[in-house]
Amino acid sequence: MVTLHKSANRRFALLRETLHRQLTPGAWPGFGLSPLNRAVCALILLASLMAVLETEPTLRQAASGLFFSLEVFFVTTFLAEYACRMYAAGEEPRYRGISGRIRYAFSFWALVDLLAILPFFLAFLPFNNVFLLRMMRVLRILRLARLGRFSRAWSALAGALHARSYELLLSVGVAGLLLLLSAACLYVVEAAEQPEAFGSVPRALWWSIATLTTVGYGDVTPITPLGKLFAGITAVAGIGIIAMPTGILAAAFSDVFQHKDPRSEDEADDSYSLSQPERQRHDAGKMEW
Amino acid sequence: MVTLHKSANRRFALLRETLHRQLTPGAWPGFGLSPLNRAVCALILLASLMAVLETEPTLRQAASGLFFSLEVFFVTTFLAEYACRMYAAGEEPRYRGISGRIRYAFSFWALVDLLAILPFFLAFLPFNNVFLLRMMRVLRILRLARLGRFSRAWSALAGALHARSYELLLSVGVAGLLLLLSAACLYVVEAAEQPEAFGSVPRALWWSIATLTTVGYGDVTPITPLGKLFAGITAVAGIGIIAMPTGILAAAFSDVFQHKDPRSEDEADDSYSLSQPERQRHDAGKMEW
Amino acid sequence: MVTLHKSANRRFALLRETLHRQLTPGAWPGFGLSPLNRAVCALILLASLMAVLETEPTLRQAASGLFFSLEVFFVTTFLAEYACRMYAAGEEPRYRGISGRIRYAFSFWALVDLLAILPFFLAFLPFNNVFLLRMMRVLRILRLARLGRFSRAWSALAGALHARSYELLLSVGVAGLLLLLSAACLYVVEAAEQPEAFGSVPRALWWSIATLTTVGYGDVTPITPLGKLFAGITAVAGIGIIAMPTGILAAAFSDVFQHKDPRSEDEADDSYSLSQPERQRHDAGKMEW
Amino acid sequence: MVTLHKSANRRFALLRETLHRQLTPGAWPGFGLSPLNRAVCALILLASLMAVLETEPTLRQAASGLFFSLEVFFVTTFLAEYACRMYAAGEEPRYRGISGRIRYAFSFWALVDLLAILPFFLAFLPFNNVFLLRMMRVLRILRLARLGRFSRAWSALAGALHARSYELLLSVGVAGLLLLLSAACLYVVEAAEQPEAFGSVPRALWWSIATLTTVGYGDVTPITPLGKLFAGITAVAGIGIIAMPTGILAAAFSDVFQHKDPRSEDEADDSYSLSQPERQRHDAGKMEW
Repeated sequence: MVTLHKSANRRFALLRETLHRQLTPGAWPGFGLSPLNRAVCALILLASLMAVLETEPTLRQAASGLFFSLEVFFVTTFLAEYACRMYAAGEEPRYRGISGRIRYAFSFWALVDLLAILPFFLAFLPFNNVFLLRMMRVLRILRLARLGRFSRAWSALAGALHARSYELLLSVGVAGLLLLLSAACLYVVEAAEQPEAFGSVPRALWWSIATLTTVGYGDVTPITPLGKLFAGITAVAGIGIIAMPTGILAAAFSDVFQHKDPRSEDEADDSYSLSQPERQRHDAGKMEW
Repeated sequence: MVTLHKSANRRFALLRETLHRQLTPGAWPGFGLSPLNRAVCALILLASLMAVLETEPTLRQAASGLFFSLEVFFVTTFLAEYACRMYAAGEEPRYRGISGRIRYAFSFWALVDLLAILPFFLAFLPFNNVFLLRMMRVLRILRLARLGRFSRAWSALAGALHARSYELLLSVGVAGLLLLLSAACLYVVEAAEQPEAFGSVPRALWWSIATLTTVGYGDVTPITPLGKLFAGITAVAGIGIIAMPTGILAAAFSDVFQHKDPRSEDEADDSYSLSQPERQRHDAGKMEW
Repeated sequence: MVTLHKSANRRFALLRETLHRQLTPGAWPGFGLSPLNRAVCALILLASLMAVLETEPTLRQAASGLFFSLEVFFVTTFLAEYACRMYAAGEEPRYRGISGRIRYAFSFWALVDLLAILPFFLAFLPFNNVFLLRMMRVLRILRLARLGRFSRAWSALAGALHARSYELLLSVGVAGLLLLLSAACLYVVEAAEQPEAFGSVPRALWWSIATLTTVGYGDVTPITPLGKLFAGITAVAGIGIIAMPTGILAAAFSDVFQHKDPRSEDEADDSYSLSQPERQRHDAGKMEW
Repeated sequence: MVTLHKSANRRFALLRETLHRQLTPGAWPGFGLSPLNRAVCALILLASLMAVLETEPTLRQAASGLFFSLEVFFVTTFLAEYACRMYAAGEEPRYRGISGRIRYAFSFWALVDLLAILPFFLAFLPFNNVFLLRMMRVLRILRLARLGRFSRAWSALAGALHARSYELLLSVGVAGLLLLLSAACLYVVEAAEQPEAFGSVPRALWWSIATLTTVGYGDVTPITPLGKLFAGITAVAGIGIIAMPTGILAAAFSDVFQHKDPRSEDEADDSYSLSQPERQRHDAGKMEW
């Protein structure tokens, strides 16, 4: 009896260890993502694609049954995955036992996993508001955020952005001032001619942002000669608005790439892997659950 | 009696020293801005936001009382701040006494402070001209310029721009020539078809600037095959017009960041502070006022 | 008789060697392309230009005979060139004999050459479908791909792109997420007002991509204040979408140019040549065909 | 009599030397441009501005007399300047004597000077063609080319462009291929729906260039889902089309600025001057004219 119990224990220990290794990106000994996590990634992408397609009324009406069945399938799979992750979390010392599991449930990525499941159940609430209904549908697309768990390698880019965040913020500030200034100029000279589009500074901001970012929709354009003059100056300033952050980022990336050069020769493979295996080894003999 | 006078003197000296330390960015011993200056910054931002919102006719009519009360509050606060700054200026040797205060009143930032208060009183003049009225409203937004007093740290960016100002000016010149050339070409080939939009070089400049900056409103587009050919060449040249200043700025920032590297390790905190405390110490015992 | 046969053999060997030297970019001893290959390049460009012009109905109707005659000329020339290349391939050991020729026929560039001839014969099939007919015409333009055989020198640029392909892919991913997010936002706030343009996330993507890439057609623009707010944020994010890949490429090119500096002094001429002569010398005495 | 003749000779020699020093940018001993050349530059700019304004019909009708008088003034001044330059050219050994003057008259900048005067006299020819008349007016704007004589300092920028001309040409080639490819795709999928805009590859090129350069006029946009898909891909490729030359230029400028660093400390002033004085000293005693 004791032997049987012990053997079951050992089997559970092995199962938990295997799950942990498959589900935790850092615990996978091989290169890249484990097969199970790849399947999870594919499911997340597929679920998001379905959520995108379901917002299209013609598709929703044509295949409402298919969309609902797929949604049920995705949610049950995600629920099963959530349970497995919860169980496998016990492999790490800090998440052992009941209190550890509660601590895990409130960890960042566990909350994201839970939030990815929730919209399905919210959809059963009786919504009459069309706006909220659309919001519900869009919430399903945010499941894509779950992919963040599997990507640790864009730290180099994020580092370059962070190192120059002060300069980038400053150029955002300069852009904001130019935005306000050009909107104020156009308000002064164009308000009389086009009160609907330039009747106030907030209204003129719509034109101003479309011009400074060089988007240029053309739904609103100045018609007075003075307005066109200021618009021309704004458009030229828009080149500066593009050039400044681009220049800052180029210099920052140049810095990062040059400092990474010695590293990149030794750890070139790692910089291309989605998750670095940290080879955390746990003694599988201990059990708390 | 003498002791009382002396004690009052000492109290005034302390007050002036405290005000000076709180109001002058360079005199604050701590990191960043003093609490009082932070409040001033917040007020300036709020006052500018209100000035922006007040230009919207629907809001102005809905809450004209609120806007006027807030304006009165901002102006009285700015007046009080101006008086305090005038008083605290005596802490610095060059602004001591009556003549020093007059010298202070004509210093750059003191004039900016005064100009930020003026529009309120100008609004009481009987304006019949709608254009001038709009201008008055926009002048209030220019209070944002007062924020310049608190920012000394963007000198690195300004330095990069200044070091390459010759190259940047040159690329502006090249852009100007291309602008004129493409406007002249379109004038020659499109004037007969679209006299309103391309009937003269100055008119064609409006299309030319929208195309070269890649804004592309689309309110004016060539319709003849030859006009479209020249427009295509102009659009491709527009990429060069964006690429040149961006490339110059990228190289300039790269230069600045690399030369700042040794400095940034020692003074990293300072480069992120809005104002460097210069730890100017004044003996508080002397009094002139 | 033996002498005559030997002399003919020698003449053929000489012809094949000359053809090989003229046709294979790597076998030309001089700088750049051989005269024959230059003629082939010119023919490819001319044939592509004709294919482009032939799609224009007015030109096709005005000069259908000319277009057909030119097409017959191009195809016969390309066929002759294909035969010559097939024959000259025997100069290289791996393409000798019948089996070598078959191996050559399945080599990448030989297949491209064959595919450039095929559309002519496909045009004789009785197509009723206008869509397929247009596709046939466009296939002729793809002959431009044949030029790839003659260009080996853009490896420096391709190398810079490849070395940073991970970072570039990441910025494409970030762009994709922003695209989806802004489309989702606009779908939520604008679907009620403009169901045709923002009635679903896939529909909103059309607006989203035009804004994020700063193209800004203006055929679809938000009209609600909240929609305009999100559109403004999207437009500003679009600057980041341009700045990131530009910054990465600038840093990558900077890296490549700096590492190429010692090389460029020795091999400066080669880096400007379209094809590096590899000076492969074949003993012309051997013959298999 | 001999003394008088000698004195007149000496006076002429002095005049010619002064004129040469004032008119030839390289012969001016001081910093920047000589006062006379500055006046010439101002005149050229003014004459070009007048030529631009004269194309506007409303201005031309309102002040035709003023425009003609100014044109007469500019042309007589330019003629006088041309004569002076011709006379002063004798100061340089290679332009001495009658044959030297003829050689000078065919030098590049002398021809440009002559061409700047010509349009005035061509205007007296009896033109009935409105197109040629517009061309005549635009020719006057090309006087701006004369400014090129005074600017020698943008060689650093031109050098950076030249050093990477191969890479820049390559990116133009890639852009051209993308342009053709996207036009061909849109022709295939949109020709049936919008024959006017996408009925042939040359017609589709107009849309294609507006999209790839991110100008995005919006006068022509795809309406089929497949067309919108290809348009989206084209717009994203457009970012690459902007990023590639920008990255190449950024790296090239970075290279130039870094190699110029030691020089810029010694000759910083020169890099900001429009023309470097070459301190050519001529012995004024010799006379040929």
